[in-house]
Amino acid sequence: VIPATTLEISGSRFVAVYALAGTPDDARARAEAITVEQTIEFPADLIADDDIRAHVIGRIEAFTEVAPGRCEATISYAIETSGFEIPQLLNVLYGNCSLIPDVRLQHVTLPDDLLARFRGPRFGLRGLRELTGAPTRPLIASATKPQGLPPSGLAAMAARMAEGGLDVIKDDHGLSDQPFAPFRERVRATAEAVAEVNARTGSRALYLPSINGPADEIVERAHFAKDVGAGGLLVIPGEVGLDTLRRLADDDELALPLMAHPAFQGAFVVDARMGIEHGVLFGTLDRLAGADMTVFPGYGGRFSFSQAACRSIVDACSAPLAGLRPIVAAAGGGMTLDRLDELLSFYGRDSMLLIGGNLSRGDLLDNARQLREAVEAWDARHGAATP
Amino acid sequence: VIPATTLEISGSRFVAVYALAGTPDDARARAEAITVEQTIEFPADLIADDDIRAHVIGRIEAFTEVAPGRCEATISYAIETSGFEIPQLLNVLYGNCSLIPDVRLQHVTLPDDLLARFRGPRFGLRGLRELTGAPTRPLIASATKPQGLPPSGLAAMAARMAEGGLDVIKDDHGLSDQPFAPFRERVRATAEAVAEVNARTGSRALYLPSINGPADEIVERAHFAKDVGAGGLLVIPGEVGLDTLRRLADDDELALPLMAHPAFQGAFVVDARMGIEHGVLFGTLDRLAGADMTVFPGYGGRFSFSQAACRSIVDACSAPLAGLRPIVAAAGGGMTLDRLDELLSFYGRDSMLLIGGNLSRGDLLDNARQLREAVEAWDARHGAATP
Repeated sequence: VIPATTLEISGSRFVAVYALAGTPDDARARAEAITVEQTIEFPADLIADDDIRAHVIGRIEAFTEVAPGRCEATISYAIETSGFEIPQLLNVLYGNCSLIPDVRLQHVTLPDDLLARFRGPRFGLRGLRELTGAPTRPLIASATKPQGLPPSGLAAMAARMAEGGLDVIKDDHGLSDQPFAPFRERVRATAEAVAEVNARTGSRALYLPSINGPADEIVERAHFAKDVGAGGLLVIPGEVGLDTLRRLADDDELALPLMAHPAFQGAFVVDARMGIEHGVLFGTLDRLAGADMTVFPGYGGRFSFSQAACRSIVDACSAPLAGLRPIVAAAGGGMTLDRLDELLSFYGRDSMLLIGGNLSRGDLLDNARQLREAVEAWDARHGAATP
Repeated sequence: VIPATTLEISGSRFVAVYALAGTPDDARARAEAITVEQTIEFPADLIADDDIRAHVIGRIEAFTEVAPGRCEATISYAIETSGFEIPQLLNVLYGNCSLIPDVRLQHVTLPDDLLARFRGPRFGLRGLRELTGAPTRPLIASATKPQGLPPSGLAAMAARMAEGGLDVIKDDHGLSDQPFAPFRERVRATAEAVAEVNARTGSRALYLPSINGPADEIVERAHFAKDVGAGGLLVIPGEVGLDTLRRLADDDELALPLMAHPAFQGAFVVDARMGIEHGVLFGTLDRLAGADMTVFPGYGGRFSFSQAACRSIVDACSAPLAGLRPIVAAAGGGMTLDRLDELLSFYGRDSMLLIGGNLSRGDLLDNARQLREAVEAWDARHGAATP
């Protein structure tokens, strides 16, 4: 039925490692199903012995039982199947196989000729260090909240954070365009408040409004934010789509650092038998799409991530990825001042600590100053590496 | 620290029911955490006894142990917290709590004054019946594939499907803009092939190209598709963002029926202890965002959905939802001709059967004709309800 087909194809392939729970026989059968499901989604026996069979269908490169009841299949795909676009790349890596139980996308390797089609992060770690004037120390961030405060209240909070020496002040990710603090009023007021402190004290705090809004307003909101002085943007790929992040990163008129937030994406990572490995989702994919910072819930906070999960994100932020800049892993979700030494020992100097609500326990300005001083002291004690 | 705040607030609330695995004490603690996490994400003890506490923080309306080790918490949220926008509505319903283990968003009730802010599906079931000229019978659909065929091969396949009497012919969801069949060439060739058959035979098949592409090209692709004669569009909300669907549905210049595809969203539904209930994700939310048809993997096919899961989707497609039109549940993922009676008995006349690769087993045209005849015979046997 399907005519034999000849294709012009580069031969270059990207690789996905899937962890499969189950017996080796059962896992092997699912791995074989995945090679078809992610590509032609068509009865393989109806395909001729042609280039579709040879190149388009995924190829099992390795299959091993790594532990009793747990196998890993390494499957390669022709880079052409991705169409060199992020939504379709997601489709090949994990689209239909998200619907198959007990399959986890464990690791991804993208070859240079695929990566060359993406610009990736505009700033990355180095760019953020330049913008904030922090050549060697860990970066520090907080968020304006709670939802319900008027723009003036949120702006006053941001001013204290800037005065205290934070590098990045983001909107809480739950601030969108609510009547309590409409987007434009809030962003203008907060950006002006931060700019005033920066001008007066010489600080270089970046204010990142959340632009989580309608698909046809996000770009407009982003440019409005830039126009009134925002220093970056907070984006939620799980809610607006990963390629929206890429579109904002690639916008040369915008040219703002971008922070990705993990809301709505937890279901991909928390069950180890399925979904996508933490480092792939919050590290490699966010970075591919141009995030300069990726927020995740640090171990020991309000959420559930293990140290290993956090480590996989940190590693993916700086692992070689062709010409794509290393980015900053930003641990949040219940981080506290009193854990600072432990957290910095774990995450290292090239990370960002995002301390949200806990910074408001007591005096916000004092706490922000203490955080900055403690991070500088840590930096000095640990021999402030040359930038 | 946080000034007492007075808010103008309607008092109208939307309701989410969360299933929580664990002991009642532990589940109750997580339910209380959710009321804060989804809204203010800020230490509740630092909030004054004000309108933020009274209205913005979520409210536990009911809490019950429904089975040993399984509780349900009914939590209401002020409609204002949603900002009346889909990304932020997703945030309140499931944003940060996606990161909390063993929490499943089980049910959602949206009040009329929130629903009134959304137009929902432009066509819905009735609109699709008018467009396809099928006033009472179940609708039938297939997909052009495999990836790797040139535009002419895919177009020839679509022509046979139209000739055979299918109502909807969609691109395989894995077709994007690959070099094998670039978007514009493929869509033009396929639309023309279907139009030729429609003109010659009087059939009214709709061709739905997949517009899964870069964030800044999707709208352009959609309009190109319309211009060359596409009868609808296939959208993957899990990859391009749910609000992109809403944006396309609300586009009065476009005005095409939209089919939502579940790729990449499986991790939300397959583990019953977490994620989002099938009917909420593929029914209520897709419908809210304007899908006229929602594709899901039918029970007994290549994937894992139970009959109960499929039923929850079918029900959510037609449940009362203020003025939002009922939509069509489209069961796919390994459906076969020989199961037709069983499938139609289960899904009913207001559903769509999406038979993909299996329709190519043997002669595609013959199979399509058989499918159409079998569905018409079923309709006659079951007393073709007056439309």
